[in-house]
Amino acid sequence: MQEVRVITPATVANVVCGFDCLGFALTEPFDEMTLRRTDDPGIRIINRDEFGLPTKPEENVTGVVAAAALKRAGTDFGLEIEITKHIMPGSGIGSSSASAAGAAVAVNRLLGDKFSKLELVDLAMEGEKLASGSRHADNVAPCIFGGFTLVRSTEPLDVVTLEFPPLWATIIHPQIEIKTAEARAILPKDVPLNTAVKQWGNVGSLVAGLAKGDYGLIARSLEDLIVEPVRKSLIPKFDEVKEASLSAGALGGGISGSGPSIFMLSEGAATAEKVKIEMRSVYSRTDIEFNMYVSELASSGARSL
Amino acid sequence: MQEVRVITPATVANVVCGFDCLGFALTEPFDEMTLRRTDDPGIRIINRDEFGLPTKPEENVTGVVAAAALKRAGTDFGLEIEITKHIMPGSGIGSSSASAAGAAVAVNRLLGDKFSKLELVDLAMEGEKLASGSRHADNVAPCIFGGFTLVRSTEPLDVVTLEFPPLWATIIHPQIEIKTAEARAILPKDVPLNTAVKQWGNVGSLVAGLAKGDYGLIARSLEDLIVEPVRKSLIPKFDEVKEASLSAGALGGGISGSGPSIFMLSEGAATAEKVKIEMRSVYSRTDIEFNMYVSELASSGARSL
Repeated sequence: MQEVRVITPATVANVVCGFDCLGFALTEPFDEMTLRRTDDPGIRIINRDEFGLPTKPEENVTGVVAAAALKRAGTDFGLEIEITKHIMPGSGIGSSSASAAGAAVAVNRLLGDKFSKLELVDLAMEGEKLASGSRHADNVAPCIFGGFTLVRSTEPLDVVTLEFPPLWATIIHPQIEIKTAEARAILPKDVPLNTAVKQWGNVGSLVAGLAKGDYGLIARSLEDLIVEPVRKSLIPKFDEVKEASLSAGALGGGISGSGPSIFMLSEGAATAEKVKIEMRSVYSRTDIEFNMYVSELASSGARSL
Repeated sequence: MQEVRVITPATVANVVCGFDCLGFALTEPFDEMTLRRTDDPGIRIINRDEFGLPTKPEENVTGVVAAAALKRAGTDFGLEIEITKHIMPGSGIGSSSASAAGAAVAVNRLLGDKFSKLELVDLAMEGEKLASGSRHADNVAPCIFGGFTLVRSTEPLDVVTLEFPPLWATIIHPQIEIKTAEARAILPKDVPLNTAVKQWGNVGSLVAGLAKGDYGLIARSLEDLIVEPVRKSLIPKFDEVKEASLSAGALGGGISGSGPSIFMLSEGAATAEKVKIEMRSVYSRTDIEFNMYVSELASSGARSL
C-alpha cells in the first residue's frame, strides 16, 4: 500500500465521575489525514487547515507518532502527511489525540496492520506526551478503539472496552483558553476517603448502567464530587448550561477533558437537539464565541477509508 | 401465613477495590430462622445456637429489624423468632447482616410480600445500625438481592445488581477479634487523588470484567491500593495467605468486610479447593484457630423455604 486516508473522531475524556479513566468517541467532528509513502526518506507535513500547527515533524503530534511507529516497526520509509483538522486545538474534545491516533492507525495500515489496537494506543501516547507533557491514554484509547473505554492502567497499559447502549452527546465549545497547567493546578492533591468512595461507587454503577443499557442508572451515576466542583469555575456559565441541559432531558454530563468544552449525554437524538437549543440559549446571552456539536457516540474509532 | 422458615447467606463486603460499595453472597455458610405469628403481642427470640446473642428483641438485630418491618407495615402482630446461626459473629462474612436480612425477608413473607427488595435492604440496615452503629448496606444488599451488588448510595439508597460469571470463593476465618472501631481508626482520612483514580479505574474495570465474564480482567482489577495496605496489618499472615492463594490459581481477593476473614475468588471449584489447601497450610503453621469455607457465589439471597 502506498497511500492511506484515515478519519479520526473527536473524543470526550474525564467522563464525569471517571476522571483520568473514562472516555468515549464521537461520530463527529473528525479529522482527516492522508499518508503517502515517498521515495525520499523523512517525514513531510502539509497542513490543509487554518490552525497553523507546526510542520516540523518533531514538533507535530502526527509527525512524532508516525516516526515512533516506523521506528518500532524497524523500518524508515519516507512519508508525506497531509492533514485537514476539523477538531479545533484546545477545545477539550481530543484534538491532539485525533492527530496522534490518526498517525498511528494510518502508518499501521501502510505497514500491513502490524500492530494491535493496544499497541496503537501506546504509540499514540507519544503524541500526547508532545502535546501535554504526559503519556496519557484517556482520549487516544476511545479514539482508536471507538465506543466507551476505560483506561485501567497506563503502566502497564490496560484498556477496557465497555458495552454501552445508544447515546447521543451534545457539546458546546466556548472559545476561551484553559491552560492545562492551570486546570491541573486547581485539582486537590488529596481527597477525603468518603468522597472517593462515593466517586468509585459512581464509576462502578456507570459501567454497570452502560452494560445493562439502564439509562436511569447512567443518569444517577453521572455525578462528579471531586473534579467538577473545582474545575467548573474555569468555564463561564457551567452551572447554567448543566441545569438547562438536565431540564431539557439530558441524562447528565460535565466538563469534556480539562475543558473548556461541556458535554451532555442523552438517550436519543431528539433530546440531544433540545439540549443544544438550551445550551445555545445560555451562551447567546454572553459575548463568548462558541461552537456546538450533536453526535451519536461512535462504536468505531479512527479508521482508514 | 402463620409460619415461615428462611435461610440467609454469608456475604463478603468491601470487595478489594470496592471498599464500602461492592459485595457478594455466598452459597454457604448460611443462617436459619423460623418466624411464627403468635396470639400474644411482642417479639420473643429463641437462639438455637451457641453464640449467646441477646434475646431481648431491642438488643437483637433480628428483633430490631422484625419490629421495624411490622411498624412500617402498620401492623403489630406477635412473633416468635427461632434462630440457628451458623455464621459466627465477628467473622467478617456478614453475620449480623444475615440476621438482619433474614428477619426482613421472613416478616415480609408473613406480610404477603408487601415490601420490595430495596425496601427490605433499607429495613435490614436498621439491624446493621444496632450491630455496628451505622446504617450501611454493603452486606445486607448482597444478602437480600443475592449475587454481586454495588451500593451506589445509601442516602438515598441505590443498590445495583451486577452481572457476573461463575465464581467460587475460598474463605479463611482466623479466630481473632478485630474491633470495628480499630479497623475504622486505621483508615486514612484522605487519599492522594492519583491513588483514588487508580482505585476507581479498578472498580470500573472489575464491574466491566464481571459483566463480560472476562476472568483475566477480573484478576487484574482485584487490586486495593487504599484499604488493604493499612488493614492487612490487623490480620496475621495476610500476605502469605494471599501469595499462596495466587500461586494456587486464585484470581485475587483480600479482606472480607473489615476482617479478620480473608477471601479469594477463583474461576472454578477445583481451583478454589486448591486455594483452601494453601490457606490451611499457611495457618497450620500458626497457633491461631481457624475455619474455612469454599462456596460458589450465590445468585439468590435470603429466601423462604
